[in-house]
Amino acid sequence: MILEIAEFNIPTDRAADFESAMIELKTVIGSSPGYWGHTIQRSLETPERYVLLVRWTSLEAHEAGFRGSHAFQAWKARLGAHRDGAVVEHFATILEHEWAFSVSSLTN
Amino acid sequence: MILEIAEFNIPTDRAADFESAMIELKTVIGSSPGYWGHTIQRSLETPERYVLLVRWTSLEAHEAGFRGSHAFQAWKARLGAHRDGAVVEHFATILEHEWAFSVSSLTN
Repeated sequence: MILEIAEFNIPTDRAADFESAMIELKTVIGSSPGYWGHTIQRSLETPERYVLLVRWTSLEAHEAGFRGSHAFQAWKARLGAHRDGAVVEHFATILEHEWAFSVSSLTN
Repeated sequence: MILEIAEFNIPTDRAADFESAMIELKTVIGSSPGYWGHTIQRSLETPERYVLLVRWTSLEAHEAGFRGSHAFQAWKARLGAHRDGAVVEHFATILEHEWAFSVSSLTN
């Protein structure tokens, strides 16, 4: 399993539109093969900073599968200038411990 | 709930000792009040980059509770120079979707 971390810097006057676009991502990404959940988080110390974390079964599921899809291209266009300066990185798990919680209580 | 993300840059010749120290963290952090799971991840694109993600019930649980504890001070000393240049940031959840998995299959 691979963890994708994408970092965004969003001026606060664009935060509402960015968050709307990120909420729309759920529909786009949720049915992608190899997708295994995601979360969007906003920094407490630097509110302009957001991170998107996505679990994938493999790097290929993200790079070739999702990014090669028409649905992603359409969502990328929707995201528009919010993507400027975004950084995307992939990680492999060294250790996980009690890293689970109730889905139903948190899913939007 | 708060997500702590700590970033580390570890020269590859120190990776084995860093990973050992991070594995030891499990015992230290696992019993801290307000702790709700963590994972350690290593970058595929830049193997020197590691991220530690920890879920806390509140910012205070991390900042005042865990960081104020004797157990953390001892582990910090164990981590030693691996901490040089580390960055710690806290995040609030905007959205989570299917962000869960089997604990038993992944816990070390």
